[in-house]
Amino acid sequence: MKALESTGLRWLGNRLEALDQRRLPDHEEWILIEGPEQMARLIHSLAIRGAPLIGVAAACSLAKHADSGASENELRMAGATLREARPTAVNLAWAVDRMLGCVGRPPDDWLREAARIFDEDVAMCDAMANHGTPLVPDGGAVITHCNAGGLATAGIGTALGVLFRAHEQGKRFHVFVDETRPLLQGARLTAWELGRRGIPHTLICDSVAASILQAGRVQAAFVGADRIAANGDFANKIGTYGLAIAAKHHGVAFYAVAPWSTVDLRCASGRDIPIELRDEAEVRGVSGSFGAIRWAPEASAAFNPAFDVTPAELVTALVLDRGVILRDTLSGHPFGSCATLRKL
Amino acid sequence: MKALESTGLRWLGNRLEALDQRRLPDHEEWILIEGPEQMARLIHSLAIRGAPLIGVAAACSLAKHADSGASENELRMAGATLREARPTAVNLAWAVDRMLGCVGRPPDDWLREAARIFDEDVAMCDAMANHGTPLVPDGGAVITHCNAGGLATAGIGTALGVLFRAHEQGKRFHVFVDETRPLLQGARLTAWELGRRGIPHTLICDSVAASILQAGRVQAAFVGADRIAANGDFANKIGTYGLAIAAKHHGVAFYAVAPWSTVDLRCASGRDIPIELRDEAEVRGVSGSFGAIRWAPEASAAFNPAFDVTPAELVTALVLDRGVILRDTLSGHPFGSCATLRKL
Repeated sequence: MKALESTGLRWLGNRLEALDQRRLPDHEEWILIEGPEQMARLIHSLAIRGAPLIGVAAACSLAKHADSGASENELRMAGATLREARPTAVNLAWAVDRMLGCVGRPPDDWLREAARIFDEDVAMCDAMANHGTPLVPDGGAVITHCNAGGLATAGIGTALGVLFRAHEQGKRFHVFVDETRPLLQGARLTAWELGRRGIPHTLICDSVAASILQAGRVQAAFVGADRIAANGDFANKIGTYGLAIAAKHHGVAFYAVAPWSTVDLRCASGRDIPIELRDEAEVRGVSGSFGAIRWAPEASAAFNPAFDVTPAELVTALVLDRGVILRDTLSGHPFGSCATLRKL
Repeated sequence: MKALESTGLRWLGNRLEALDQRRLPDHEEWILIEGPEQMARLIHSLAIRGAPLIGVAAACSLAKHADSGASENELRMAGATLREARPTAVNLAWAVDRMLGCVGRPPDDWLREAARIFDEDVAMCDAMANHGTPLVPDGGAVITHCNAGGLATAGIGTALGVLFRAHEQGKRFHVFVDETRPLLQGARLTAWELGRRGIPHTLICDSVAASILQAGRVQAAFVGADRIAANGDFANKIGTYGLAIAAKHHGVAFYAVAPWSTVDLRCASGRDIPIELRDEAEVRGVSGSFGAIRWAPEASAAFNPAFDVTPAELVTALVLDRGVILRDTLSGHPFGSCATLRKL
C-alpha cells in the first residue's frame, strides 16, 4: 500500500492509524486500526469524525480487512457495521458502498480503491479550497462552526480548507470559532487547527455569534455539510441553522463547503435527511479526555440532535469541488432542482 | 427587621443569608451575609445573580450595614462598591441609589427601605405574572433562556414567574430550557426551579433552539431583561438576541418580562447599555462547584460578553409589572419614545 497521510488518518507501511480526536487539543495520540469493527466504534464515539474523513477511514479499514484475508461475507458484514456507525453523513455509506463494489476482487483492488477514495478526497479538498478562496475577505473576519478542517477530511479540509488556502495565499482575516456544544469540536479541534497554522482566531460560545454579526465584525460564514439534498438544503452540525438565520438577518454571506460525496440526490429536500440523536447525558454536562462533569439536574430530560438542516434559501452559495453554486444565479429555485445539481 | 424570604435570599431574625447559586443544582447551601463588601463579591462571582435580585440583595446588605452602626461615609463607600459589582443590570445601581437616599437617617429607616424594596419586587413579580399568563399557551411548548425565575428575584420570578403562575392556574405546557453557556444558568438553575415545581421541561444546548422553532414545537419564547432602554431595546443574557432573531424568522412570539426597576430611561437605545465582559477562561472550559475543566487550547483567545442587546423590533411584547406593551400597538415606534414608556 502506498503511503497515505492526513491530519487525522495515516497509512504508513502496514500500519493504519487514526488520530484520537477525543484527546485533542491537549494530547496527540494515534490509534492503531486493527479491524472494521474497531473502526466503526471509533467513528461512533467520534474518535474519528468529519463527514468526508469517516468515509475515507471506513474505506481504508475495509481494504485492510480484505488485505488480511477476510472472506466476502466478512467484508459485507463489516461494511454493514461501518455503514451504521453514524446515520447523517452520507459520505460514510457512499464510501462503504463503493468499497463493496470490490467484493469478489483480489485484495490489491481493495487497496487501490481505498487509496483512490483517499486521493480523491484530497483533490476534492483542493478544488473546494481553490473555488472558495475568492469568497474569503482580505481584512475583516469570518465565522465558522464545528470543525470542517484537515481533521474532518483526508485533505486540507472543506470550510476550513478554504480559509487555510486563503491564508496561504496571503489574505489576512480573523476567524471567530463557535465552540459547538455539546461536543465542542470548534473549541477543541478548530481552535487547535487554526493555532497550528498561526491563523488569528477567537473562540466564542455558540450563542455569541448573533451579537458578533450584529456588531458588523464578520463578513462571511463558512461551514461544512454532512449531507446535501437535491434541492440544496443541507444537514450540518447542530447550530448551523441558527447561525444561517442570524447571517441572513444581518446580510452576511453564508457559505457551505462540501465535496460531491456529500450530495445525496435521493434526498429531495432536507426533510428526507435522517438526523442522529445522541445521548441526553452529553447535554447535562460534558465529558471527554479532559474529564467528565455533570451540571444539570440528573432528573431533567434533554434533547440532543447532532445535526440540523439549513434550507437552501439561507445559503449564499454552496462551494463544491465541482464549482460554486450561487443561490442568486438560480432564479426561483435555490440551488435548483435535482437536474441543476446533476448538471454540475 | 420583619422576616423576608425568597427562593435565593432570606432575612430571618438577625441573619441575612443568600443561597449560593454557584452550588446549584446539587447543593443547597446558604451563605451568611456579613457585610456589603462580601455581598459585592458574591454578586460579582454570581453566587447571587438575576437583575432584580442583585438590587434587592444589595439593598438588604446596606440596611444591615447601617443597622450595625456603619458611618455615613462607610455606607456611601459600601454603596459605591456594590454599584460596581456588575455593570449591565440597572436594578443594582437603582437599588443602591435608593438606599443611599437614607443617608443621614436612622438605621430603622434603612431597614424599612430595604424591606420595601424587597416587598415591591415581590409585588412586581406578581404583577408581571398576572399580566403575562394570558400569553402562555395552554398545550404546546415555550422556550426560555438563562434564569429569570425565583432565583433571580425576591418573588416568583420574571419570565419564569409568568410560566409558574400559568402552571398554577392549570395551564399545561412544556418548557424548553436553553442551557445558557458559558455559565449554564439554564441547565443549572432554570432546570432546578422547573423540576422543583414539577413542570415538564427539556434541556437543550443553546444552538438547538433554532431547529426546535423550525420544527414548530414552540409557540412562544419568554426571557428576562437586565436593562431596558427608552426605545424598548433591552439587554439580557448572551444568546437572547440570537433566540429573538430565530423566533422572528419562524413567526414565534417573543416576550421579555421585567420589572419597572429594569427600565433605564437615560439609555436612549440599546447602544447606550454597557455590556459586561467576563474572563476568557469561562469560554475555554467550564468551572463551578461541580469541578473545573478546560477543553480549548490555552493559547486561543476568547471573547466572553455576558449580555447582548435585542432591538425592540424583534420583541412581540414587553411584559412589565405596569402592564404589557405590545409592539404592534405603537405604530412606527416599537415600544415608542421615552414618553411612551414614561406614560405607563
